[in-house]
Order: sequence, then C-alpha cells, then structure tokens
Amino acid sequence: MTRAGAARPDAIRRHNLGLLLTQIHRDGELSRAELTQRLDLSRSTVRALVAELAELGLVEEHVPSGGERAGRPSHLVGPRSDGPYAIAVDVDITHITTAAVGVGGHVLARDVTATDPSPSPPATVARAIVAAAERLGTQVARGAWPIGIGVSLPGTVGRQDGLVELAPNLGWRDAAFGEILTGLTPAGLPVSIGNDADVAVLAEHLRGNGRDCDDLVYLMGRIGVGAGVIVNGAPLRGRDGHAGEVGHTVVDASGPKCHCGQRGCVETYIGDNALLELAGRKASPTVDHTDQLFTDAHTGDKRAADAVRTVAQALGRTVATLVNLLNPELVILGGSLAGVLEFARADIRASLDSFAMTTARDAVQLRPPALGEDSALVGAAELAFARLLDDPLVRP
Amino acid sequence: MTRAGAARPDAIRRHNLGLLLTQIHRDGELSRAELTQRLDLSRSTVRALVAELAELGLVEEHVPSGGERAGRPSHLVGPRSDGPYAIAVDVDITHITTAAVGVGGHVLARDVTATDPSPSPPATVARAIVAAAERLGTQVARGAWPIGIGVSLPGTVGRQDGLVELAPNLGWRDAAFGEILTGLTPAGLPVSIGNDADVAVLAEHLRGNGRDCDDLVYLMGRIGVGAGVIVNGAPLRGRDGHAGEVGHTVVDASGPKCHCGQRGCVETYIGDNALLELAGRKASPTVDHTDQLFTDAHTGDKRAADAVRTVAQALGRTVATLVNLLNPELVILGGSLAGVLEFARADIRASLDSFAMTTARDAVQLRPPALGEDSALVGAAELAFARLLDDPLVRP
Repeated sequence: MTRAGAARPDAIRRHNLGLLLTQIHRDGELSRAELTQRLDLSRSTVRALVAELAELGLVEEHVPSGGERAGRPSHLVGPRSDGPYAIAVDVDITHITTAAVGVGGHVLARDVTATDPSPSPPATVARAIVAAAERLGTQVARGAWPIGIGVSLPGTVGRQDGLVELAPNLGWRDAAFGEILTGLTPAGLPVSIGNDADVAVLAEHLRGNGRDCDDLVYLMGRIGVGAGVIVNGAPLRGRDGHAGEVGHTVVDASGPKCHCGQRGCVETYIGDNALLELAGRKASPTVDHTDQLFTDAHTGDKRAADAVRTVAQALGRTVATLVNLLNPELVILGGSLAGVLEFARADIRASLDSFAMTTARDAVQLRPPALGEDSALVGAAELAFARLLDDPLVRP
Repeated sequence: MTRAGAARPDAIRRHNLGLLLTQIHRDGELSRAELTQRLDLSRSTVRALVAELAELGLVEEHVPSGGERAGRPSHLVGPRSDGPYAIAVDVDITHITTAAVGVGGHVLARDVTATDPSPSPPATVARAIVAAAERLGTQVARGAWPIGIGVSLPGTVGRQDGLVELAPNLGWRDAAFGEILTGLTPAGLPVSIGNDADVAVLAEHLRGNGRDCDDLVYLMGRIGVGAGVIVNGAPLRGRDGHAGEVGHTVVDASGPKCHCGQRGCVETYIGDNALLELAGRKASPTVDHTDQLFTDAHTGDKRAADAVRTVAQALGRTVATLVNLLNPELVILGGSLAGVLEFARADIRASLDSFAMTTARDAVQLRPPALGEDSALVGAAELAFARLLDDPLVRP
C-alpha cells in the first residue's frame, strides 16, 4: 500500500528547503522579501531556511550595497561560485560537450572533445566523459563540488537503469551505458541519463521559451527525430522512459525504408538525410552541411529552398499529430527543424492547418529553442540537480 | 508570481481531510487502523479527522460486530447512504443516462431517457438532465444531497468553460452547453463537463483495469474515435482540454473523406461506420448493430469476421502511434473496439508489432474496460466529486 502523502513537520522543513533552493536555481539571486512572498511563509522561517542552506554551502547571502531607497534593504540570496555543480554532458555523433553547471544554470566551465572513431562505442564515450570531468574539476572555483553527472544522448533511454535501448546514430543497441559510466565514476557520484529531446524540453521549460508553459513539446530534428514532452508541467516519460518516439510514426506504409526496419517513418521525411537528399546533395548529415543548405535557401538556391519547403510540409503534418493528441500550448522546433521554421514557417502552418483540429491548432505557438544548441546540455544538468533540489540535505 | 506551495497548518488539515475522504471514496469502508497506516499520521490525528468528516455528514463510523479476534477492533469508516452524491450523466446519441453516484462510486439510482429527436440540441439535452436529476432526488435516501453535476459527452470540451467545440454525432458545434445547463440548474450546484474518453479513463484509473497504473490510454471507438490519456497518474488535457483527438490523425491523405473535412482520418478506418461498411452492412451505426456484427463474426460469418480483422489491423497501427508517443503501460479499448479486441487480438498485436518500437510495444497491455459501458458514467461522477475531495470543507 502506498503512503497517501500526509505532511509532517520534518518533511515540511526539508520540502521548504528544496522549494527555496529551487527558486534560486530557477531565477538566480533573489531578495529574502521576494522569497518570503513566493513561499508564503513567515520572514523568520525564511531567514532560518536561508541560514541552513548557507551553512550547507548551497547559497550565500549579502546585503545589497548602494541603492537610493530608505530603510534597511532586504538581504539578497544567491548561488555561490564555490558551491555545488552538475557535470552536464551532451553526447553528439562527432563530439562530446561536457560542462560544469552551477546552481542557477550557469555554465561555469566547458570542454568539447572530438570523438575518434566517430561515432564511438559506449566505453569510449564514458572514458571521455570522465576525463573531461576531471579537467573541469581543475577549472571551477576551489571548494566547489560535483553533485552528479547528467548525460543527454540521441537514443531511447530506460527510465531507471540508464540502459540505452537504441541510439541508431551512435550505433548503440541495448548498451548498459549508465552502468559503464557509473563504474568509471568516483564512488558515490550519481549518474543520470536522458534522451536529448527529453532533457532539451526540461531546459526550455525551466529557462527558455517554455518557461510559463505547462504543456509543451520539444521536437528535435537531426539525423533522427524525437520529441520531449511536458504535460501538466511535468515530463511525459511513459512506462519505460521511451515516450516521444514520434520519429517512427509511420506516415506512409509504402514509403522509404527507415533504419528502424519499418517504411515511411516521419524521420524519413523530415530528418537531415531527407533534407539533404531532397536538395540533391550527397553530403553527410552534419550540422555544417544542413546549415549550409539553409544559407543557400535564404540566398536564392531554388533547389535548397524547395527541399526546405517539402520538409516543412511533412513537418506540419507531424506537428498536427502532436497537436491533435497533446493539445500543447507551444511546440519548440530544435536541431535543423529550427532552420526549417525560420525559412518556411508559412508552409509548416499551412500543412498544420490542413491536418489538425481547429481550436488546438489555432492556439499552438511554434518557436525555436531559446537556448539554441545548449538546450540539451542545460537539460542534462537538470538531471543531476533533481536530487539536490528535491532534498537539499541529501549527500551524494 | 505563483505561490511555491509551502505547507501551513490549516492547509495541512484540509489537505489531510481530503486525503482521508479520497481513501474512502476510492476503496469504500476502511478501518481507522488502515487509514492511520495509509496516511502515515498519528492515531489521534486520524480520529480527529474522521470525527470532523462525520460531523460534516460525509462519512460514518461504526464498531464492527462479531469477529473472532481478541482485543478492541478498530472502528470502521465508510460512506453513508444519506451523504453527498454526484449527479452523473452520460450523453449518448439516442439516450441520456443519469445516475446518483455516492461516495465510493456506487450507483445509488439510475435514470435512462430516450432522446427525441435523436440526436437532440443542447437545450433539450440540458432540460432532460435537469428533469432526470429531479427524479433521482426522490429516489435517494432522505437527507442525501447533490454536490454537483458531471456530464460525459462525445465531443471536444473546453477545459474550463464547458464549451463544446465539436460533437459531430450530436450535431453540436461551439455549443455553450456548460452555460445552458448551469442556467437550468438550482443555484450553486456546480456543473462540470468532460469528453467521454477523458472521463472513461478517469473511471478505469480509479476503479477499473487501470487502478495500479500511472500511464494509460482509454481508446474509445464508436461512431467517432477518441482517446483519454493518463500521464504520471494525472489526466492529459492539454492547453484547452482538447488532447486525445487521435481519431483525426491522418493515416492516408488520399483516403476516405471524414466529417471533419480531412481525408483518411483514423476514424474512417476503425469507427463503427467503417466496421459496418467493411462487412457490407447498410445498418446505422448503433450499438445493437455492431454487437450483432460481432456475434455473427464469432458464429462463422466470414464477411463479418474479415471486417473485424481489417479494423483490427488499422487499430493496431493507431495503437502503435499511441505507444511510440506515450509509452503507456496499458491501452484500454472501449466501445466497439472492445469487441474488436475480443475477436481479433492477434491481428491487433501483429499490426502493433510491425508499427511500434520494440520495448514500448512489448510492454503494453491491451484490455477491455472493467466497467464496461459504465466507464463514462462513473467517470462523469468523478468530475463532480473532484472539488469535494480536494477540500471537504467546501460547500456548493
């Protein structure tokens, strides 16, 4: 029988410590007065909570200097540069970006490692991450400490175990990546792994274009296509953590062959390979090559422009399926889909209009990611921060 | 700025009253000892909470009689027959079912009204509901009181306002049904309206096959097709309450014309009209006619059997889209789709296997609704109970 969640005093204090730290993490420096109002607690309670977080080394307080106003100004509470940090990792096909991300979501230090061979097997990627984390450790402020490793990668990731079922563009299948990385990591440092679109939507929800939005989708389009979904303000993961595999919805059962074994998947119409092929280019599907194609489309290359418009039409139909089923307030188009949106928004809208139900389609906003290429990296940091924000008294 | 939800003593008491009443509502009579364990509170606190709910007339306590065990038995706490009840309504094309549903989900009295003309305009339906509610009021125990009206109907319903955007099989479009019904209802009795699949999934989650499941879909197939979705244990509604319109996902853009204006919608392949047409029957799409078709299929009518199998194949593909995107633990197939599942489960599975990703598809269970035809009615009662369970001190 599960507990029904009745609240008790000690649990309340820890809960409130978490709420307070979450405010700072979300918005950066805040006055005690602002925190008192947001948490709807007494001033003395907030003072005590802040003191406890400061003693734990998680925040610091100072009296604002200067200012014109009369009276005693409210103390400011903010992250400290020698506080806890997340080791955030964005695993891409050709390189791995590793960053130290502090409370507040600031990138304190960043390390980019090219992978050779590209793509690399799981153990190689894990070793590269651990080496990068060690380098980052020397770049952060003295006394700062890592709280965990959060990894974003382009594949389907198990909800609990960090098993990567399928990461086709890394060439991984049933890879026990969580276990491998944990085995190489200093004892006690927790490892969390997430799908790139799943963590990108977390980041945009917290710090990007989805900030004030409880129902949104991040549709990530690169070689593969996947969606990260927030419903009722919380991530939609599903039973196994595999939700969002919209790239393998079959649009036409007699369509082009997909690497997943089916035919006519969404990915074969709006992924980078489709985009380059439609433009008659034999180039490999890298960011450089798709960026070049968008530049060419903008500067009058008709074949490139037509290719983007054709992808836009298929994209509109995919967005329509998401809109009919999820009725989101916002769909963020990331990866190369941001380029498609920039060049051919009207084509996406026209296709969406013909394939989706009225109210839901008229209401939905289409936007690029505010964090650009960093959405997944910043989201990976959130995976590592989750435990600390849930209970600031927890120790790795 | 929204409040961050810090807990305070008065709010805690009301919260705990709600939790306790919710336990009784969910499971019926429970001992104080069981409640103490579930809520993880002290015995004296639970005794006080029960006393307060009893004083409000919401529950009653008694000492269990008989029994073999030594010592003082724990008091039993349960719903009372002269307590609050929901007026639950299931609006169908040809008839309206209205029921008084008590705490615990028991149907205390039931009233079925045939609609003439069929289907009926919103005002006619609203008048029929109010008349049925009055009749029910004479059938419940003396002293019992209605807490609100919850209505299920086959259409897209606005999240807050009860505006029915589109209920094609009722012939309604942009019908201010919530407003109309509220205008005819005794002052102060709140009215809540929901889509049939949305409330059916609520009922199955609370009392049916989805009880221990946090991620499930109820796919309702009658003339129209729609999905009710639970994610992370809570309803997926979307920005406007229009989520779940899976019936209008376009499977083939050159397919049959759909009443929504598009071509090749899911509904045109797995709805009742498709089923009857595939079997070469010109019958109107009523439950009697589809039931007859299933009976014929089971007793060797080859054309009927082939029609069910063809629908099963298209249904498997629709389920695959839901599985790829939502990775649910369970998909409940309701309405005539329950008949398709019973006759052609293997065909649905084969199609699902060819169209969905591996882990998610292997894990998903396919089941009929445990509450059968009453899922939507019982779910409609939950719409009316929600306010009371959230805060038992609230009064209409």
